Amino acid sequence: MLSAERMKAIIKTGPHPGLEMASVDIPAVQDDEVLIKVIASSICGTDLHIYKWNPWAEERIKRLPLIIGHEFAGRVIEVGKGVRGFSADDYVSADSHIVCNRCLQCRIGQQHICSNLQILGVDRNGCFAEYVPIPARGVWKNDASMPPEVASVQDPLGNALYCTLVEPVTGKSVLIIGDGPIGLFAVGIARASGASWIVLIGRHPSRMEVAKRMGADAVFSGDADGLVSVILDQTKGVGVDVVLEMSGSAQGLDQGLKLLRKGGRFSAFGLFPTPQSINITNQIIFKGITLYGINGRILFDTWYRMHNLLTSKRLDISPVITHKLAFDDFEKGFALLMERPKKAVKVVLML
Amino acid sequence: MLSAERMKAIIKTGPHPGLEMASVDIPAVQDDEVLIKVIASSICGTDLHIYKWNPWAEERIKRLPLIIGHEFAGRVIEVGKGVRGFSADDYVSADSHIVCNRCLQCRIGQQHICSNLQILGVDRNGCFAEYVPIPARGVWKNDASMPPEVASVQDPLGNALYCTLVEPVTGKSVLIIGDGPIGLFAVGIARASGASWIVLIGRHPSRMEVAKRMGADAVFSGDADGLVSVILDQTKGVGVDVVLEMSGSAQGLDQGLKLLRKGGRFSAFGLFPTPQSINITNQIIFKGITLYGINGRILFDTWYRMHNLLTSKRLDISPVITHKLAFDDFEKGFALLMERPKKAVKVVLML
Amino acid sequence: MLSAERMKAIIKTGPHPGLEMASVDIPAVQDDEVLIKVIASSICGTDLHIYKWNPWAEERIKRLPLIIGHEFAGRVIEVGKGVRGFSADDYVSADSHIVCNRCLQCRIGQQHICSNLQILGVDRNGCFAEYVPIPARGVWKNDASMPPEVASVQDPLGNALYCTLVEPVTGKSVLIIGDGPIGLFAVGIARASGASWIVLIGRHPSRMEVAKRMGADAVFSGDADGLVSVILDQTKGVGVDVVLEMSGSAQGLDQGLKLLRKGGRFSAFGLFPTPQSINITNQIIFKGITLYGINGRILFDTWYRMHNLLTSKRLDISPVITHKLAFDDFEKGFALLMERPKKAVKVVLML
Amino acid sequence: MLSAERMKAIIKTGPHPGLEMASVDIPAVQDDEVLIKVIASSICGTDLHIYKWNPWAEERIKRLPLIIGHEFAGRVIEVGKGVRGFSADDYVSADSHIVCNRCLQCRIGQQHICSNLQILGVDRNGCFAEYVPIPARGVWKNDASMPPEVASVQDPLGNALYCTLVEPVTGKSVLIIGDGPIGLFAVGIARASGASWIVLIGRHPSRMEVAKRMGADAVFSGDADGLVSVILDQTKGVGVDVVLEMSGSAQGLDQGLKLLRKGGRFSAFGLFPTPQSINITNQIIFKGITLYGINGRILFDTWYRMHNLLTSKRLDISPVITHKLAFDDFEKGFALLMERPKKAVKVVLML
Repeated sequence: MLSAERMKAIIKTGPHPGLEMASVDIPAVQDDEVLIKVIASSICGTDLHIYKWNPWAEERIKRLPLIIGHEFAGRVIEVGKGVRGFSADDYVSADSHIVCNRCLQCRIGQQHICSNLQILGVDRNGCFAEYVPIPARGVWKNDASMPPEVASVQDPLGNALYCTLVEPVTGKSVLIIGDGPIGLFAVGIARASGASWIVLIGRHPSRMEVAKRMGADAVFSGDADGLVSVILDQTKGVGVDVVLEMSGSAQGLDQGLKLLRKGGRFSAFGLFPTPQSINITNQIIFKGITLYGINGRILFDTWYRMHNLLTSKRLDISPVITHKLAFDDFEKGFALLMERPKKAVKVVLML
Repeated sequence: MLSAERMKAIIKTGPHPGLEMASVDIPAVQDDEVLIKVIASSICGTDLHIYKWNPWAEERIKRLPLIIGHEFAGRVIEVGKGVRGFSADDYVSADSHIVCNRCLQCRIGQQHICSNLQILGVDRNGCFAEYVPIPARGVWKNDASMPPEVASVQDPLGNALYCTLVEPVTGKSVLIIGDGPIGLFAVGIARASGASWIVLIGRHPSRMEVAKRMGADAVFSGDADGLVSVILDQTKGVGVDVVLEMSGSAQGLDQGLKLLRKGGRFSAFGLFPTPQSINITNQIIFKGITLYGINGRILFDTWYRMHNLLTSKRLDISPVITHKLAFDDFEKGFALLMERPKKAVKVVLML
Repeated sequence: MLSAERMKAIIKTGPHPGLEMASVDIPAVQDDEVLIKVIASSICGTDLHIYKWNPWAEERIKRLPLIIGHEFAGRVIEVGKGVRGFSADDYVSADSHIVCNRCLQCRIGQQHICSNLQILGVDRNGCFAEYVPIPARGVWKNDASMPPEVASVQDPLGNALYCTLVEPVTGKSVLIIGDGPIGLFAVGIARASGASWIVLIGRHPSRMEVAKRMGADAVFSGDADGLVSVILDQTKGVGVDVVLEMSGSAQGLDQGLKLLRKGGRFSAFGLFPTPQSINITNQIIFKGITLYGINGRILFDTWYRMHNLLTSKRLDISPVITHKLAFDDFEKGFALLMERPKKAVKVVLML
Repeated sequence: MLSAERMKAIIKTGPHPGLEMASVDIPAVQDDEVLIKVIASSICGTDLHIYKWNPWAEERIKRLPLIIGHEFAGRVIEVGKGVRGFSADDYVSADSHIVCNRCLQCRIGQQHICSNLQILGVDRNGCFAEYVPIPARGVWKNDASMPPEVASVQDPLGNALYCTLVEPVTGKSVLIIGDGPIGLFAVGIARASGASWIVLIGRHPSRMEVAKRMGADAVFSGDADGLVSVILDQTKGVGVDVVLEMSGSAQGLDQGLKLLRKGGRFSAFGLFPTPQSINITNQIIFKGITLYGINGRILFDTWYRMHNLLTSKRLDISPVITHKLAFDDFEKGFALLMERPKKAVKVVLML
């Protein structure tokens, strides 16, 4: 029993910028939970929003103080008494979406959009700590061969996988808009899945280099002159089979809709800060496209296929993990991710 | 050989409102066409636009004079010499989308969004005439039991069927927005397909009555106070499984996106005259919905299932066919459809 | 706390024919379970096998004495302390497949074929008793409007729904082979779903009458001369779009494969006592068919759609529930189901 | 106009073993056809059957003398007057399935199983000739970058692609049974598509070596002791996600059904000379599998994705093309393919 002991945790203490390393009680494990000793945690854009305390964070975070963080790998150290199937020392990660398993969506196979969703490190204490308790239904066993820094980024990698593979891409052209971690992961997944032409539209030269290392056939700056024409020409005017919108920008949305071919598929993943104007008639209806809103990961079909791709080495995500730092150096990690022009992609904190 | 003879046709003679009945040469049949003697033609909203010569028509219609009309039933009277599988006296209708069968979309099973699409009565002479030539690849054989007025409306009925059944509706709640012919057909199709709760949002009391006769469980005026809350309450706050947007109005789009449940399906069919503002983040991504742009009909899967529903009497569309008029009374037909408040739904011209 | 009390239960006491009504302890409820007071239980073919102690039962039943029964409706009377989302007096039924939620299949959305499946009344004590404890994850809340005898047969009705609707049937022809309860339910589901031609091949005149009342367009005896030709002729030689094999007989399998059209769908549900000879080359490969092995129900997508079909009255299954008897008259219920020629279909025992 | 001229062709002259090189009239091109000058033709197992005049050939071949062969690449040399979209000098291949485009299957997107299917070199004169006429609807334009020997094998490669990708394989384990050309192509396609564990069961050491070069993670001889247990162990007892049966042998069928996991997918492509005994209850129903009968290729979705995989170099099939011979050396080609143990895989005849 660890509950009398203390642990280090990265905490948002109040409604203002910044984060603090503090010593807090190790949380007690509930009957349906496992307590996990964290080995590696990775920093997400969401964590940056909370760090900066931007308007999104101000509106979204209801609970302070809060241990943040939702991407990690670790080992089970204690098992709640109602839990079956997990044992001490299991090497695990977890989906950041803690689902209720009782709402309509959960009951009909759409847990990823649970109506009572709680997000780790947003709605409840997260994993930027030495220990984190997680309901067993959301925990996933990792293969022993997987390095902790890789295992720790499966939550965002799963976003990319679900977004990319919601329909097959083998033998199809894929345009990825956005050079954040999800976009770069998507390049690798599309490549591993046999997409035949992979183009990324980005913004930051260093990240566009990573895109090439992940397997992109071509990369373009989103601000390049006549970009839509240039890419369209390379498809002989037809457009691409698949667009993955991972930028959340009006420009990206516009480029994506213009570049998608008639009858193509559009996956919308990037969050837009404001409503967007769309020419539904010409870009959606007359084109006969299918548009998927993508959030989370399919529990656990996405994890299963991701596990297989990683352990088989079909997918190598190492170019995206640009930094491994000690947990105590978290400020440096956040600073790297706020640097301009952006160079760092995934920063993993090792415990 | 009929080509020396003359026929009656309803013609747009120039860039101004109105239509004229005229006598023109019976067209020659090309090698890949059949010539069809028209028995019944129905008037579509598109025909009204052309009649009125509204901005859409002004921009879209490139060819004048033009025989308009694209919905019909008739009998094959002459068979082009390259055509197999059709004989004189075959009782037929046709898809209004004349496809090329050579572009990428046509070759991979997406003929309905052919890149070289020609629309009957828009891009080439149409069926508001005693005779119309159609490429055999777009002609469909009707069952002898089907009344000509029913057979003549299969083109728009097919829109409704494709839109409604792009994913299954059996045992699901369906919200249909729009009380035009396609919306009213969709009510009947949803009902025949076992949708468990069918709600239509309309505008015209007479048409909303037709919706009830077609099987709607509830009808609402789009302007009713607190409409979104009222409908949401009836779903216990969850929202509906399926939304069919058939109004092309900003209000309808907004209502549809708000009323669709997390993980639901949205079919966009109604054409919007201008770009629309959409809260993609909250209404599409966080909800995890799938949105289909719907245009045309699947060639000929839609026709096959429609044929089966009609000939088996599982689907009775007679409430939607509000008027049968003589071909010579076409002016009266257009007048009925332009009357306010709208009462007429489908007006069929009989030859 | 009820555990000191006693209850009536129908028990298989040993490896021999027959069942006994006995008084046993009311079972204690586990932390993850709810204890349900049974209102109605229906008798399945599986229960008959156990009654008769046929070779299947002899091999399959590992645990004696055993309370049998797996189809029921009742009210929650006690809630395990780890359970959320259920309260005393909830009106419920349950899926007879008690799944582990931990195996690969459970984790990737295939709980219905859980690798550690336990079947109620087969692998663990069942519902032919006054009280039955069920893990909450398998319990489904019924609508208050649903009569208990209807609610009690949802488990087999769900088999029929999953089997019928594994692909859409709207506007398609459906051949159902077998006049047991699942076949007769399937007729009703196909009809409610807009199947355009529904044919049942059966064996027992009374049950074939029920098929007509459920909506079959035609019924045939499986032994009728030239049956395959007769049905094929009615499809103009093409064959039917969908076959549901629910007889588990060599004759039915052969008829089904011969009558399915090229490119059609075959759902295999009926269990065959022995391996079957299949002309894979001609009947499966050259025909390009898709064959689904169907077991259980999709948790809980099947239940959701079934609930909607029943509460909306789109589906009326009352013709299939031929008998309601008092629980104490169970011997009479089993006798009715063993009578030849078969007349009874579903017999429900009311508590 | 070439029709007065003569060409070389490989002909089955009568109902007996062997083939003859002969000089015949260059066929006239029909209105809906293009005449193609053949550059490369590849030999299929079907051609071997016809060469040997085995029982299959004796029953299947209705027309003698017959120019055989159905896999090729060439250039259009003459265009029928009803044909649009092709010009002289187009570099093309064709699907060996000449479809009618009029039957139900053709009209609803299942042309590959056309009810009036004619197979090139089986039902009508084939491509083992200097010139071959093909209906334009079955002709596919090749990319200029594609070597003729590669372009010539797209028909069987398309079989493998359709069979492998009828459902996605990315991140899944795939077992391929059979080391013929289709099995070896399937290895490469599965690998290019991100299948995470690819196992081939074969018979001929040389071909199993080719499987490794195509990307198999493991190869086994079908006769290896305890093979099912060995492979099952490597899946931790779960079984594989996908089985592609490409051997047409009772042993392969049995191994495949035993090794497929619960909820897995089985593609049946290999033709079985006789009916097979299957334990439907345990291997199909209780396992809840989906079984696809695979014949031909999806017109032209399969070709589109194949074209993209080949031109993007995601898929390299060169290890499967073991021999390129002069057209005049056809006897040597057939001899190579009849040699035991089998070493040659695809033999291409170059003109």
